[in-house]
Amino acid sequence: MPVRLQPAKNLLPVPGIRLASTSAGIYARSRPDLALIEFGQDAAVSAVFTRNSFAAAPVIVAKRHLVNNSHRYCLINAGNANAATGESGIQAALTSCSKLAELAGCSVEMVLPFSTGVIGQDLPVEKITNSIPTLLAGLSENNWNQCAETIITTDTVTKGVSRQLELDGCTVTVTGIAKGSGMIRPDMATMLAYIATDAAVDKKILQRILDNAVNRSFNRICVDGDMSTNDACLLIATGKAKHNLITDSKDANLEKLQTVINEVCEFLATAIVRDGEGATKFITINIKNGQSVQECLDVAYAIATSPLVKTAFFASDPNWGRILAAIGRGGISELDTSQVSVYLNNCRIVHNGARDKDYTEEAGQQVMKAEEIAMKVDLSRGEADATVWTCDFSYEYVKINADYRS
Amino acid sequence: MPVRLQPAKNLLPVPGIRLASTSAGIYARSRPDLALIEFGQDAAVSAVFTRNSFAAAPVIVAKRHLVNNSHRYCLINAGNANAATGESGIQAALTSCSKLAELAGCSVEMVLPFSTGVIGQDLPVEKITNSIPTLLAGLSENNWNQCAETIITTDTVTKGVSRQLELDGCTVTVTGIAKGSGMIRPDMATMLAYIATDAAVDKKILQRILDNAVNRSFNRICVDGDMSTNDACLLIATGKAKHNLITDSKDANLEKLQTVINEVCEFLATAIVRDGEGATKFITINIKNGQSVQECLDVAYAIATSPLVKTAFFASDPNWGRILAAIGRGGISELDTSQVSVYLNNCRIVHNGARDKDYTEEAGQQVMKAEEIAMKVDLSRGEADATVWTCDFSYEYVKINADYRS
Repeated sequence: MPVRLQPAKNLLPVPGIRLASTSAGIYARSRPDLALIEFGQDAAVSAVFTRNSFAAAPVIVAKRHLVNNSHRYCLINAGNANAATGESGIQAALTSCSKLAELAGCSVEMVLPFSTGVIGQDLPVEKITNSIPTLLAGLSENNWNQCAETIITTDTVTKGVSRQLELDGCTVTVTGIAKGSGMIRPDMATMLAYIATDAAVDKKILQRILDNAVNRSFNRICVDGDMSTNDACLLIATGKAKHNLITDSKDANLEKLQTVINEVCEFLATAIVRDGEGATKFITINIKNGQSVQECLDVAYAIATSPLVKTAFFASDPNWGRILAAIGRGGISELDTSQVSVYLNNCRIVHNGARDKDYTEEAGQQVMKAEEIAMKVDLSRGEADATVWTCDFSYEYVKINADYRS
Repeated sequence: MPVRLQPAKNLLPVPGIRLASTSAGIYARSRPDLALIEFGQDAAVSAVFTRNSFAAAPVIVAKRHLVNNSHRYCLINAGNANAATGESGIQAALTSCSKLAELAGCSVEMVLPFSTGVIGQDLPVEKITNSIPTLLAGLSENNWNQCAETIITTDTVTKGVSRQLELDGCTVTVTGIAKGSGMIRPDMATMLAYIATDAAVDKKILQRILDNAVNRSFNRICVDGDMSTNDACLLIATGKAKHNLITDSKDANLEKLQTVINEVCEFLATAIVRDGEGATKFITINIKNGQSVQECLDVAYAIATSPLVKTAFFASDPNWGRILAAIGRGGISELDTSQVSVYLNNCRIVHNGARDKDYTEEAGQQVMKAEEIAMKVDLSRGEADATVWTCDFSYEYVKINADYRS
């Protein structure tokens, strides 16, 4: 059960984008597992990928194809990550792309492949290529919900959101979908995300918009601290909206669009945490008054990845000593612990590095019972701050990850 | 249930060391919770402490007192960490030391305090000071087992070992005890360890022996990746043995003694992992042919702290993709993944960065069923290597840490 998160619904079509999905039989059981996103070859595409050295074959191929300036398709399968599959994995990804290119009448470089699922198994290429005609025949502007459903793996709900804004009097739509639940950590969380808009944006500006948005969303979440081999986040701007093309970083429309893309990315990123494997609590960790954003992040992730802190949240136990222990190993070399304060919601638990005199165990327990908890750590040594989202660590987490594959 | 580990027994007395323990009532239930170790003031003492910024009050006080060259007592309580207790915590530790000093007729700096247990609660000083006469009256050379029992918290068994060696024809004894089960991570694992020998060693040499031993034992273990506020490891050399004092780093006796101290520390460190919270498997991770020991350690700890890897071990599931994903986020910037091999015991699972052609799932499962598993990762890029010990992640881990305190 995700923490206060409903399945994606009413996702708005984005002019210039068509989608399709089908059941190619990659999973043993029948479920949709292959999706296609189509866009005009004049659409601008920007992307961010995992930094894992064991990047999957589709990540390697998609990066190569992105060097091109013209793209038309994202081909996405669930059920198999095509990761740690060596040169034959690369060939498998390329074969899938070639087949689509052949049938769609475009070059192979115009196809970007993506995979998610179990690592280390050969991609069932024939199942994919056999399903491509079905995908092409099924393309529709209205298939966002189906695609959101197709790309999920251990997720318990689909993740998607739409927003609209006005640019030069034109209504512009932004719709995004994502998958992710486990193997989630800072440097591009383990996930796939596809965000599309009909806004007209120069490609370089689009990449900057995506980088900005990702750095405050997908790069700020943590479920288990593990980093995927297959992470990818795409932002596609079809340019179908009639406002003036955004080419200048000072364009007033840029800020408006950035704000909405940020919102969409934050929604999707936090949705991944809310649906984190076994999650029963959604925790916002805000570190303030650090000397740098990096040191704030280091402390935030020390807390967010601490199994002891996460199990205490699961138990609704205000065991704040574990929070202090995590802060203390956060890598700040000259931390004056006597200046540190810790709040759970508005309850100040730690003041001057020790238990707040007015704090009572009852007050702490009251806060910890909630499904959503905001933790604030004041380092009192600077002006930087950073926010990270995480979830708790439950029996269910162990069950999910001990049973996955079997 | 620890993984193939018996409770400490038959611990040998160390000439020059006397010990005592009692139930001071720090725990609500009746159990021994206060221990005393006494040694002659001419004994050499060396120590290693946690690097956590939120070092506990006893750590701060013990470090101060260690600046002195002469010590006589370790006063150790379980049930309360006296950490994150601010200035009053320091006073509490000092009051305990003063009372002992007064009754034993020594200076307060001759007493080294240690605490382990829940963080953030005031130390019940009176319970401790009231029990000191009992401790002093109960001192005996034969109380190692009782002390091993007194210092444990979430440990399920006591941890201790004795070894003997010959130096210049004299029999020398080394006996060590330790506690630790959770909040265990590289930079001084979360633990207390007391190792004593009647060898005669100059203090500076003794510190070097301890640093060497700790770097290949207590600094190479990981249960949950959390770092304690209270870690401490002491090595005491009473000098009662009649061999020549070891003052020179080229002394032939030094190597002999170092080897035995290494053995004792490795036994105690791996005992902590074997008794890791909820552990059902004991895993040795050896990273070889890296460019530096540090990069080998980075990769080893990425694997050892990965909840996905640890839950796969719990499930006896050879889900080696998770191992590769952890290696890939281990921080090596230019890792040629096509050179990486992974072995579980003698079974080569990954060769040239992908599944070994001869590997079968059955073979992997066979290895994973065992209680002890050796993982070897060959990075094929240098000549350095490092070994780390860890355990799996089970339902029981979550249970222990969700229930602790309540």
